[in-house]
Amino acid sequence: MESLQMSRVFTLIEPGPVVLVTTNDGQKDNVMTITWTMVLDFTAEFAITTGPWNYSYIALQESKECVISIPTVDLIDTVVGVGTCSGADTDKFTKFKLTRLKAKYVRPPIIKECLANIECKVVDILTQYNIVVLQGVAAYFDSTREEKKTLHAVGDGTFIVDGRRIDRKKMMQAKLPSGI
Amino acid sequence: MESLQMSRVFTLIEPGPVVLVTTNDGQKDNVMTITWTMVLDFTAEFAITTGPWNYSYIALQESKECVISIPTVDLIDTVVGVGTCSGADTDKFTKFKLTRLKAKYVRPPIIKECLANIECKVVDILTQYNIVVLQGVAAYFDSTREEKKTLHAVGDGTFIVDGRRIDRKKMMQAKLPSGI
Repeated sequence: MESLQMSRVFTLIEPGPVVLVTTNDGQKDNVMTITWTMVLDFTAEFAITTGPWNYSYIALQESKECVISIPTVDLIDTVVGVGTCSGADTDKFTKFKLTRLKAKYVRPPIIKECLANIECKVVDILTQYNIVVLQGVAAYFDSTREEKKTLHAVGDGTFIVDGRRIDRKKMMQAKLPSGI
Repeated sequence: MESLQMSRVFTLIEPGPVVLVTTNDGQKDNVMTITWTMVLDFTAEFAITTGPWNYSYIALQESKECVISIPTVDLIDTVVGVGTCSGADTDKFTKFKLTRLKAKYVRPPIIKECLANIECKVVDILTQYNIVVLQGVAAYFDSTREEKKTLHAVGDGTFIVDGRRIDRKKMMQAKLPSGI
């Protein structure tokens, strides 16, 4: 999994894929499925919606660190499985056979099976709206992976898989940030 | 375009489609393309990232109203065109042949050519992070429309079109909100 330049990291989140978020509470790792995410800036700043209803939230709040991992369509049942059980009583890494790799700047692990991983620091928690503001500090992309199609949760128990890609780079040239 | 029950509105935004946002500054309508959006709650509460760099921002800030319209793949060049010119010097509705319909609770118009429209009130603007918090108050869906595939901006000038849909309703049953 090679390093991804920070100026390109927002392009992982902008299309709106389902993500896995790893945390560490000081004793053990955990992972949750998150579908509510948003880019805040081209400088790898993101928001996710989460709160006390997620077991991972306490670890996120106290450690102020996480890794955002981006799974692909072949991991659909891992994504749904991780999202429908709790780290309170389940070691999800063992249950779903997810391989943990050591991150560089944060304690929560990178997930080897995912297409991309973003090491993040928690910048702020806007508790009124359950918005967690994250700053990406390092990112990795597995370009050797054959399957690159990500998943988009609809919220009704169905998921849309990436289809074809349309190129409008020329029309958008003036609007694209540098380094893209 | 029929009414959509409010309990289902978050499913329009959760997959992460590119949206058009209409505003009215008290004198004229405008429309912008927004790719940074997030669901905040099942009760039709959303966030978008925008700021003074968008001409529409002043209208959004002052009128505290907008409509989120969801275009489909056949509107790709409208989406890119709207996103690469400014309401400061362009009547985008005329230029891109977008038909305005009267909204029920807000002054900005609904866009007839879009698959879905959500009338929204601005609940809050978190200026530190350029996050605008929106509350959906009414929504519409055009089920007669043949093309239903939406677009996901990557941020590098390319767009991913919706592909196939995978059903995991049974596995997720316990996690789905009521009314879905």
